[in-house]
Amino acid sequence: MRWSSFYNTTSRIFHEYPSWSKSVVICTVISGGGVVAYADAKPAQSDNVGHNRKKKVVVLGTGWAGTSFVKNMKSSSYDIHVVSPRNYFAFTPLLPSVTCGTVEARSVVEPIRSISRKSGLDIQFSEAECYKIDPKNNKVYCRSGQDKKLGGPEEFSLDYDYLVIAMGARSNTFNTPGVQEHAHFLKEVEDAQRIRQTVINLFERASLPSLSEEEKRKLLSFVIVGGGPTGVEFAAELHDFVHEDLSILYPSLKDYVKITLLEAGDHILNMFDKRITEFAEEKFSRDGTDVRLGSMVVKVSANEISAKERSTGEVVSIPHGMVVWSTGIGPRPEILEFMKQLGQINRRAIVTDEWLRVEGCDNIYALGDCATINQRRVMEDIAVIFSKADKDNSRTLDIKEFQDVVGDIIERYPQVGIYLKKNQMKDMATLLNKSQESSLTVDIEYFKEALSKVDSQMKNLPATAQVASQQGIYLADCFNRMELCEKYPEGPLRFRGTGRHRFHPFRYKHFGQFAPLGGEQTAAQLPGDWISIGHSSQWLWYSVYTSKQVSWRTRALVVSDWTRRFIFGRDSSRI
Amino acid sequence: MRWSSFYNTTSRIFHEYPSWSKSVVICTVISGGGVVAYADAKPAQSDNVGHNRKKKVVVLGTGWAGTSFVKNMKSSSYDIHVVSPRNYFAFTPLLPSVTCGTVEARSVVEPIRSISRKSGLDIQFSEAECYKIDPKNNKVYCRSGQDKKLGGPEEFSLDYDYLVIAMGARSNTFNTPGVQEHAHFLKEVEDAQRIRQTVINLFERASLPSLSEEEKRKLLSFVIVGGGPTGVEFAAELHDFVHEDLSILYPSLKDYVKITLLEAGDHILNMFDKRITEFAEEKFSRDGTDVRLGSMVVKVSANEISAKERSTGEVVSIPHGMVVWSTGIGPRPEILEFMKQLGQINRRAIVTDEWLRVEGCDNIYALGDCATINQRRVMEDIAVIFSKADKDNSRTLDIKEFQDVVGDIIERYPQVGIYLKKNQMKDMATLLNKSQESSLTVDIEYFKEALSKVDSQMKNLPATAQVASQQGIYLADCFNRMELCEKYPEGPLRFRGTGRHRFHPFRYKHFGQFAPLGGEQTAAQLPGDWISIGHSSQWLWYSVYTSKQVSWRTRALVVSDWTRRFIFGRDSSRI
Repeated sequence: MRWSSFYNTTSRIFHEYPSWSKSVVICTVISGGGVVAYADAKPAQSDNVGHNRKKKVVVLGTGWAGTSFVKNMKSSSYDIHVVSPRNYFAFTPLLPSVTCGTVEARSVVEPIRSISRKSGLDIQFSEAECYKIDPKNNKVYCRSGQDKKLGGPEEFSLDYDYLVIAMGARSNTFNTPGVQEHAHFLKEVEDAQRIRQTVINLFERASLPSLSEEEKRKLLSFVIVGGGPTGVEFAAELHDFVHEDLSILYPSLKDYVKITLLEAGDHILNMFDKRITEFAEEKFSRDGTDVRLGSMVVKVSANEISAKERSTGEVVSIPHGMVVWSTGIGPRPEILEFMKQLGQINRRAIVTDEWLRVEGCDNIYALGDCATINQRRVMEDIAVIFSKADKDNSRTLDIKEFQDVVGDIIERYPQVGIYLKKNQMKDMATLLNKSQESSLTVDIEYFKEALSKVDSQMKNLPATAQVASQQGIYLADCFNRMELCEKYPEGPLRFRGTGRHRFHPFRYKHFGQFAPLGGEQTAAQLPGDWISIGHSSQWLWYSVYTSKQVSWRTRALVVSDWTRRFIFGRDSSRI
Repeated sequence: MRWSSFYNTTSRIFHEYPSWSKSVVICTVISGGGVVAYADAKPAQSDNVGHNRKKKVVVLGTGWAGTSFVKNMKSSSYDIHVVSPRNYFAFTPLLPSVTCGTVEARSVVEPIRSISRKSGLDIQFSEAECYKIDPKNNKVYCRSGQDKKLGGPEEFSLDYDYLVIAMGARSNTFNTPGVQEHAHFLKEVEDAQRIRQTVINLFERASLPSLSEEEKRKLLSFVIVGGGPTGVEFAAELHDFVHEDLSILYPSLKDYVKITLLEAGDHILNMFDKRITEFAEEKFSRDGTDVRLGSMVVKVSANEISAKERSTGEVVSIPHGMVVWSTGIGPRPEILEFMKQLGQINRRAIVTDEWLRVEGCDNIYALGDCATINQRRVMEDIAVIFSKADKDNSRTLDIKEFQDVVGDIIERYPQVGIYLKKNQMKDMATLLNKSQESSLTVDIEYFKEALSKVDSQMKNLPATAQVASQQGIYLADCFNRMELCEKYPEGPLRFRGTGRHRFHPFRYKHFGQFAPLGGEQTAAQLPGDWISIGHSSQWLWYSVYTSKQVSWRTRALVVSDWTRRFIFGRDSSRI
């Protein structure tokens, strides 16, 4: 009793003299003796010091997910600390354009400090890599990845009340020997810059005197592994760069250039509609880009790449000057380590619930490429769903009971909605009614059977900027309305527990996808199976990518880069 | 007789079937068995193969001198081969702006291939470093400085008929210990990019949690050594970058930043007018930039720079996060080696005559920062001048004889003209007449005495872009009119030899110099002692630098960069 009255007094004082708050917290922290990174870092355990203490949110990563989270934070009830090895956000869909100088690297990046400053909140940033997450003690351990010469301490730890993991993923080499050493990736801005330099290097090297034909051919053999959107776009950009710009400056080398695209599957762009795939394959073959389907790379060396042809089983070796590896993503080592701690073994990313909360951790969220949503199966919960709906415990559901929960079911288990839509059913009553026309009273067995197929509609979200960005916005919105929604939960019924979920679960909205194919042509697959290929979609691409820029600065720069390219071509200075 | 008729026949055939020429030359070369880099490289010795063979010009370097030479070549009677470790020309006066992102690196560079392509000539380029010049055999030895991983041969040699050395210079460390290891230079585009990254690195590092005040202060202590135009401009740019842009994004660090400028002499910008120096020193002191005059740096370590104060003799140590070294230039090792071969020891650069021809080498020219013109002294030649003028061998000069040679004297020995101008004499007759009013017949003793002071007017040209660029234009013009001028020499009388010089000697025209001081203020010293300081000269600076750009592309980019900076500020992403 005495303690609680002490706290009341203290908190009232803090309320009246907010500037005290900080110093008192500092004292607490110092006397606590823990490793505390800086004055503002209040350990979560000391929650009871003041009731109006801001909750500490640590955000790991400044990619699409992390940045859209930070950008959309509006509530001032959090102390937000962002940690990332990059002090900027990069508009990654333009990276293939950066590789050839269609767009400059600096036009696609925006400092995270300038993004967070616009939010009006006091958001802190540290340029460092998080190398360990300790969910038991609500701590992350970070290391500044910078030049050691600069001196100063390199490691520090941060306490958090909420942790938002948005660290992305790394390129997946599938343990193919030699890839890490000899191939270029295309995930970071630095990768794109390196590729640009290497292309020019190769052209310069190939134009040195006294080079044999064979050596020139080897140097100018560019091999791209992976026929996904990134690989395809890079191949197209490279082809344009060579044929529109470099062939003018290096006229004698034009005929030595060869671009090869290796794809292990049956087709390139296989996540797109068949029409797009066909168009792309035909365009590439007209352009002279050698697309080899069913080619599984088995080894990369400094001068050669070996691929096994699925049709013949033969291993073919291609001499190369540069290999760009773009075959998909895998988890980062720190993420793997964290997953191990959580017991999430054999998963490709951190598993979260539909609210992006890491399974098993109440105060940790994961989003973007480092996370995957573990959608709950209807069949797993079928018994609790039924009993929750069966309010009168009659062991059958009548129409009234059913209609009370149908909205919640569809919200909690979105696969139900997708299933209905796919089978052109108006509502769930139709699904249940279909097989039993007369009565709408169903028992659990019947209920189970009717819903038995809906789980087949579940699928993982793609690892795209679009998904990550929507997740960031969603989570920021949840954080902004945390207090409100705790009082007035807006989510669906908790079928396993009691009451309602605080928030609506995350729902991804697909706005379509582009695949630039070079020569001012782009393929676009928009919702509703709307396909558009050609110059008109190139203009759609330009306008969408312009509007999606994170700031007016990058917007102006990207547009001026495109204009510059139209007028003057791409620059080939080796800087 | 039989041989000469063979050559005549051969050359007629070549004339009639020009395409044979090449293949025959290849055969000659191969049978010659020498190390020949590529088919077009015809050794100078084989001059007698065909009379209409193009002369081979090898140009070393793509800086101001080399590029303006290449850009101004118009004659198609040469095979031009440019060798440089950089495949681009960089507009170096904007490098200080690149260090802080006022202008982007790519906006100040233009590929040499695109410059040479515009000339309409078939100019070849090899990205390599010349590591040895062999003037006896008319050969240069080159090495590709690129990544060894790329494979292919790394070394090659080129034969030349004419060699143009325009390799520039390197930063001079005056053998101060630690400079090479711990200081940044500001000569190349890469240097500017590295400085930009380091500045951001330091700010990011200083904003990591748990750094002591002292550490922050050390990290954000920027020391610039050398109060010349480059050092001063960089200090000004850095100050603007910190106060206009970084202080907004890193508000808590603003007060830790310290910029120190160390100058060994009595004043900064000492090649400028006193008014400019004073204005600059006052502005810097208002800005809080610590200018320490009479500070001689004695040692640089990773964290500290030690300087000896001339006034007190004390050695003061300043902790630093970054040192930028900009104290002048020295010869490159390859140039030193070449100078040793020529017996030019103890010189700071390759010595040439007034026609930019290397002393002792008929077919080698040197220009830009790697060369210095050894102006001939009048007193050295006084006897031959007199005897040349004294046509009737009367041992005295009369007015007619004198007027015949006065133009040649002034052209051959420009110091005479400068002396006259400085002493406000109308012409040389006044100089001679002044001391002997009655007669204009002078004897050699009198002639000697009258001219005894003119040599004091000789001075070396400054190592600036302006000089190098004018030299390149001059030399290209000579090459373009080589045949014509061999028939009809246009230069002054050869006082030591017979006949006339083929060309007018090189004459530098000074168009003034700028010293940007930050805060949109620039000091300009224009010819005729015209001084302008402030915002108006900033605009003059903008327009001169815009007009001097090497291409419309860079012109557009530089202007758009300035506009971008005005609207959005400088970018602080660490890429």
